[in-house]
Amino acid sequence: MKIGVVGATGMVGSYFIKILEERDFKADEIYFFASARSAGKTVTYKGVKHTIIALDDGIYGMGLDMAMMAAGGDISARYAPGLADAGVTVIDNSSHFRMDEDVPLVVPEVNIEAARAHKGIIANPNCSTIQSVVALAPLHKAYGLKRVIYTTYQAVSGAGIDGWNDLENGQAGKPHAYFAHPIANNLIPQIDTFKENAYTGEEMKMINETKKILNAPDLAITATCVRVPIFNVHSVCINAEFENKFVLKELVRILQDAKGVAITDDPANLVYPMPRDADGKDDVFVGRIRRDESVENGVNLWVVSDNLRKGAALNAVQIAELI
Amino acid sequence: MKIGVVGATGMVGSYFIKILEERDFKADEIYFFASARSAGKTVTYKGVKHTIIALDDGIYGMGLDMAMMAAGGDISARYAPGLADAGVTVIDNSSHFRMDEDVPLVVPEVNIEAARAHKGIIANPNCSTIQSVVALAPLHKAYGLKRVIYTTYQAVSGAGIDGWNDLENGQAGKPHAYFAHPIANNLIPQIDTFKENAYTGEEMKMINETKKILNAPDLAITATCVRVPIFNVHSVCINAEFENKFVLKELVRILQDAKGVAITDDPANLVYPMPRDADGKDDVFVGRIRRDESVENGVNLWVVSDNLRKGAALNAVQIAELI
Repeated sequence: MKIGVVGATGMVGSYFIKILEERDFKADEIYFFASARSAGKTVTYKGVKHTIIALDDGIYGMGLDMAMMAAGGDISARYAPGLADAGVTVIDNSSHFRMDEDVPLVVPEVNIEAARAHKGIIANPNCSTIQSVVALAPLHKAYGLKRVIYTTYQAVSGAGIDGWNDLENGQAGKPHAYFAHPIANNLIPQIDTFKENAYTGEEMKMINETKKILNAPDLAITATCVRVPIFNVHSVCINAEFENKFVLKELVRILQDAKGVAITDDPANLVYPMPRDADGKDDVFVGRIRRDESVENGVNLWVVSDNLRKGAALNAVQIAELI
Repeated sequence: MKIGVVGATGMVGSYFIKILEERDFKADEIYFFASARSAGKTVTYKGVKHTIIALDDGIYGMGLDMAMMAAGGDISARYAPGLADAGVTVIDNSSHFRMDEDVPLVVPEVNIEAARAHKGIIANPNCSTIQSVVALAPLHKAYGLKRVIYTTYQAVSGAGIDGWNDLENGQAGKPHAYFAHPIANNLIPQIDTFKENAYTGEEMKMINETKKILNAPDLAITATCVRVPIFNVHSVCINAEFENKFVLKELVRILQDAKGVAITDDPANLVYPMPRDADGKDDVFVGRIRRDESVENGVNLWVVSDNLRKGAALNAVQIAELI
């Protein structure tokens, strides 16, 4: 087993390295790629220094079995098809191939069977979408989703090191350089660029990717995505309406039994999911579970997860482990 | 005209003073009250120093025409009825009397006529509710609200100076003292205490007060309220469904013409309401206006306003001016 990590010097790339180590991923050889700018730098993996390789067409001939890509959509668009043609299984963290009908879009707890039918490229979903579908999929199976309303609270780490620096600098009174507006002491109701319908790319990703992962093309769904001034961990407020009746206790039990979900919901003791607690954890934390009395068969959920782990690198490594 | 400001040393109290000055409120005499702890301190109003008076039953005999109360629910419960009996018109910022059927709950742009029928006490609504109904009322009138889903992003100033200090200290690496959990680099999905139905007091205020202000007792409505690490200005993501069809351009025009609303919605130029821009402003800023395709006659709105101004002191002073 020879694997490659592409985009090894980025924020998600560094989490790939960390999580592959933590989970003691079995590989005979591992190579780390980044742009020519980073070539010659080193990364330490399982105590061994590895020299960063400049990504170029040479990667096709290296005999890799698997490549994990986290270098952005343009790099994935440029290299993933060639890698797939060379027989390399690509697990791609970018959005570039996610809606391609020949590319499975996979959250292992939800649709790992789709990954097994891949044609060379497997797409890792959007961060906010992953944590949302981990919570929604078992409920969809039990009660049939009718309509979903997502409202997000997304950390700056979702924008990589540049986003992180903007918040850090802003809190130190320095100007911002990456986001369109200051994020320190502010909220930015825009993630990704605006589409013609006045939704952002992030909102459309959540809408379209949820439908694809749940195999529910006609699901009624809307989203509002907001950047908040916290460093890491995304939160999503989910309002869900089901086709079928549910008993709230049973719904909670289904979530308790769901893979990848941890329930933290004890209002009497002021226990609910919070970014500070979810930071560095693998689970998707669900709390504030309560019936929405404004509609038949409605529920409100508060879903918190580490967007660099389950929302990105961990999900990709889990896919790699399972295929 | 003799007026009293009760709770003059608190965060909302200081905004009462600021806004009465800014608007050059006409009063022949003005008195400032606070707890015995603050008695003897001074506040400056229109360039004149006023000594804080310790609040006690003596207030009843002072011949006040109007009292603005911002000293918390317990103080309002204790003093407002006696003041009303003494012929004083009380404008109360606390939640204590808001759902009392003999007490009008007033947002001047929406239901000032209710204030004119008061029986001595007029309640100032919850901060998040005020900004939400300023945006929703004209749309309700035009299209008939069917269902509303509120998801809030609330600043620490809504919890007064203690909340403000928690964020300031937290960002300086010091421990928190007021909120149940750290708020710096965190989100707390709890505002006010939990009720039996697992909703928080803040969520139930938004639900019940919206129905009362809009005179829509059967409106289907739910809410999730979240404290975010910003100092001032609340944001509310509103998903609204109407009984009647609408044309989006017409809906925008109705909001443009609505009193108290400022539209900031120009995605092409990355313009949308943000807390940093709304801080210190009187308007309710509405943007990210777009059809929600997941339901018939649905719209998503992003509504941002200074919670200490329109959400508290300004709204109360506007009531005082109009009655």
